Amino acid sequence: MNFEEHYNKKKKLVEDHIVDFIPKVHKESDTLYHAMKYSLEAGGKRLRPVLLLSACEFCEGNLSDALPFACALEMIHTYSLIHDDLPAMDNDDFRRGKPSNHKKFGEATAILAGDGLLNAAIEIICSDILKTANSSEITQRKLVAAQEIFQASGCQGMIGGQIADIKAEGDHQSEELLEYIHIKKTAALLTASVRAGAILGEAEESVLADLTEFAKNMGLVFQITDDILDICGEDQLLGKATGSDVKHNKLTYPSLYGLERSKEIMKELDEKSIIILTKYKEKSLFFRNLLIFLLERRC
Amino acid sequence: MNFEEHYNKKKKLVEDHIVDFIPKVHKESDTLYHAMKYSLEAGGKRLRPVLLLSACEFCEGNLSDALPFACALEMIHTYSLIHDDLPAMDNDDFRRGKPSNHKKFGEATAILAGDGLLNAAIEIICSDILKTANSSEITQRKLVAAQEIFQASGCQGMIGGQIADIKAEGDHQSEELLEYIHIKKTAALLTASVRAGAILGEAEESVLADLTEFAKNMGLVFQITDDILDICGEDQLLGKATGSDVKHNKLTYPSLYGLERSKEIMKELDEKSIIILTKYKEKSLFFRNLLIFLLERRC
Repeated sequence: MNFEEHYNKKKKLVEDHIVDFIPKVHKESDTLYHAMKYSLEAGGKRLRPVLLLSACEFCEGNLSDALPFACALEMIHTYSLIHDDLPAMDNDDFRRGKPSNHKKFGEATAILAGDGLLNAAIEIICSDILKTANSSEITQRKLVAAQEIFQASGCQGMIGGQIADIKAEGDHQSEELLEYIHIKKTAALLTASVRAGAILGEAEESVLADLTEFAKNMGLVFQITDDILDICGEDQLLGKATGSDVKHNKLTYPSLYGLERSKEIMKELDEKSIIILTKYKEKSLFFRNLLIFLLERRC
Repeated sequence: MNFEEHYNKKKKLVEDHIVDFIPKVHKESDTLYHAMKYSLEAGGKRLRPVLLLSACEFCEGNLSDALPFACALEMIHTYSLIHDDLPAMDNDDFRRGKPSNHKKFGEATAILAGDGLLNAAIEIICSDILKTANSSEITQRKLVAAQEIFQASGCQGMIGGQIADIKAEGDHQSEELLEYIHIKKTAALLTASVRAGAILGEAEESVLADLTEFAKNMGLVFQITDDILDICGEDQLLGKATGSDVKHNKLTYPSLYGLERSKEIMKELDEKSIIILTKYKEKSLFFRNLLIFLLERRC
């Protein structure tokens, strides 16, 4: 199976099941259900769940055991985008080529749909762990995977990065702050995706450490590419307006280091990751191809 | 110990520890920490954690085991108030006599502080369960308690009630919709507080059923009192503007049934609860006094 088939197979697995994981609601609350479904079905790369499933598979774990965690991760990512797009935050009218959630359903519903998705992620994982709570070893592993995910999505991870990102608009912009924002805002949840998948797949300590190092570098590569695409990408390809970072005076790699140096940093991080992965030979081919895929996102 | 001492002892336990449960953040994210702390320290009755601790104690459970769950519950309640007060939702400038979170920190920070509190609630519970994950019986019990809480705070509970509440503004207002909103928006989380506490205290099935029935009635009594206070309470005593429900054309008990009939319904619910509790004699005194306390909230 080539890279694209491998990627799409996992993406499809998530897309085939994620809507079934939205809690069923009473008819009086159906707007909430539709708003959550709308953003979950808006497309996207499904990178986080694909990473989780691939890391689990890399460690020879069972994909169907990992699926609820993968769908929960995508719900967390989706809620963060809905809240990020709100007028009080980035005020983006489009997401993935479609009206953003608040443009479609109104602000109040978008806030609640975001809250509902984060809450649903927790419910999915709780309910999945309870199903296997008769085996303390599996329960322990799932609890550790859950902790990885929620620490990465919370104040010490993604939400912490988002607040620093707001603070950094026009404020004292430094290399230290830039790295903090990028590690927390994006790389933390990407790293947790890989780590949670590996933990569910019963990874050995040394393998977990290697995958973590790879994921951290990949997370930064991903965010720097995003920064660069915001400058020289095309609205239509990205499905959202470009130039938003410059407009908001955001602290980004290109704004601090310039475009050329940013591309160099990206390549350095990429090379570091390749070195880690090479020792796993053929087995790590998917992750090596994933790096190429992320580096080559249309710019 | 009289009712007030009993209540305040549990309230103090929560207030003495809740801030310690906020995840420690890097200095670049300290606004987030301060915004979360601001709303957690803004006061309030702490009814949900007091209910959880009291139900646990009623079942002869250990209070210190239940404390992380009690604090997580208060975080969920607090996040819901922060998001509720936002301009796109109820647009309330004051909460508990102080500027609401977005008036103090701005809308973007308030949205993220709310998200951060919900995320922190699951982090606290995950980390607590992991500490005892060597005993599968305790783990199972804690997982069930967690599921109770997050089902009640999600789309099938609180968030579902909030969306129906928005929908009902000026829309087709019916008795069925009113009951749905009140049960979901408020009573669901209050009921889950009692049930989670009882589960943590290893309640027998029949006791859990009785406490659930009591809690559902109490939750409705609580919400009807709130509706009535919004009409005839005083801003200063409530710490927020009254008359907000009428202004927003909200569907409430007084708006549908009138003030007198609403008071009668409240008394009927109260009597039902008293009957359930009476069979537990002296042991249920705290809960019976709690009903009197809720009924007598200043109007």
